[in-house]
Amino acid sequence: MGVEASNQHAEQALEYELVDEILPLNEAVAQAEVIVMAVPVNVQVNLLPQILDMVTNQIVMDMGSTKSDVIEAVQHHPNRGRYVATHPMWGTEYSGPKAAVRGAFEGKAVILCNRKDSDADAVEWVENMYQKIGMRIVDMEAKAHDLHVAYVSHISHITSFALANTVLEKEKVESAIFQIASAGFESTVRLAKSNPEMWVPIFLQNKVNILDVLTEHIDQLTKFKDYITNSDKENLQSLISDANKINRIIK
Amino acid sequence: MGVEASNQHAEQALEYELVDEILPLNEAVAQAEVIVMAVPVNVQVNLLPQILDMVTNQIVMDMGSTKSDVIEAVQHHPNRGRYVATHPMWGTEYSGPKAAVRGAFEGKAVILCNRKDSDADAVEWVENMYQKIGMRIVDMEAKAHDLHVAYVSHISHITSFALANTVLEKEKVESAIFQIASAGFESTVRLAKSNPEMWVPIFLQNKVNILDVLTEHIDQLTKFKDYITNSDKENLQSLISDANKINRIIK
Repeated sequence: MGVEASNQHAEQALEYELVDEILPLNEAVAQAEVIVMAVPVNVQVNLLPQILDMVTNQIVMDMGSTKSDVIEAVQHHPNRGRYVATHPMWGTEYSGPKAAVRGAFEGKAVILCNRKDSDADAVEWVENMYQKIGMRIVDMEAKAHDLHVAYVSHISHITSFALANTVLEKEKVESAIFQIASAGFESTVRLAKSNPEMWVPIFLQNKVNILDVLTEHIDQLTKFKDYITNSDKENLQSLISDANKINRIIK
Repeated sequence: MGVEASNQHAEQALEYELVDEILPLNEAVAQAEVIVMAVPVNVQVNLLPQILDMVTNQIVMDMGSTKSDVIEAVQHHPNRGRYVATHPMWGTEYSGPKAAVRGAFEGKAVILCNRKDSDADAVEWVENMYQKIGMRIVDMEAKAHDLHVAYVSHISHITSFALANTVLEKEKVESAIFQIASAGFESTVRLAKSNPEMWVPIFLQNKVNILDVLTEHIDQLTKFKDYITNSDKENLQSLISDANKINRIIK
């Protein structure tokens, strides 16, 4: 059963057989055993308490990219235990039912946050489900989650958006870049196609961590700028050799 | 026939059958019909004049990422016509013979610079060769080339290097990011593994264009920082909607 605010997405979800039927929220919650929330994080902080008001013994889980605010929003809810906070580390720059990719989560990490605040049976069901689709489960407290995802996800989106705007702003002759844009460029700007409805709320909810990383990132770019300005080979060489150490983290 | 400064790369090139034999430069040039230079751009400005000193009727072409300096270095050379300036728009973050990928150039663009300064027979041979391996030929003057590649290639490398340094600087607990780093992160930082011996000379030769783009990029990131600081939803939404227009350029 699906619940969907957009008529177009509701139709697509039926057409792709992602759901058998589209229902109003209260009917779907009443009939469901497990409720999976996949909504922008600003919607989630308002919607999760409403859903927890409705549940009796159902399990509620989410897919949100930030965790502190939503967990705080239900911290004292009598049905808090039915909610399991999760964040599967997979996504693309596309959204909506058309963006679904079969088997996408296989081999990927999923973060479970503050598991001690969830009922044991709910956590067990969610863990089993994620393991059955081949995901690696990583436990984190919400605060640590929000810090780490600022580094491994949120900042990448900001640099990509900013890079796209840089190029679009300066390159008035689009046909030139269109003709010669290569794989390196595509890989650094593809995230710039991501949906603002999803990303603005993430940037605002994770503001403190993101500003910390973004300030550091601007400082790092300013080092490049200064060393290039001064034709300082040695320091450029060191900056790049330092950056090469990222191969300890990504293959 | 290969000419190679590194013994290890010479051995690998033979082992992978990229070349049949490794020779000293003067012997290889004397025996060759076509000379393909694939060296860092700072080496190229010194090596190309030496090679042109040695050629009689051979064709000399290069693969360099910058074009103004190297073309200027041989502008008045009596054998200038034998040199065809080219830049195939394909590469990865890896270098050396091991990084070769069969069929990599197929369907990609190759930029030919200042073709009127090269002999007609040399340009024709080079064009035929690139077309036979499936490349699209794009003509540009060297100055335009250096400007456009600053946008579609050089800046992507700087943002990637800087992003890697940001994460490595701030994330002391590497195991956390190692566990959860996802495809989005990988795609924005993979270029950070690129070789400093290749990239420092590119940044210095294309300094003016790169500083122009980099300054704009830092301004764009600062906009994100300011709007996030002020929780300015409307302006963040506009920045991201603008960035989404990159889908006109990349699929």
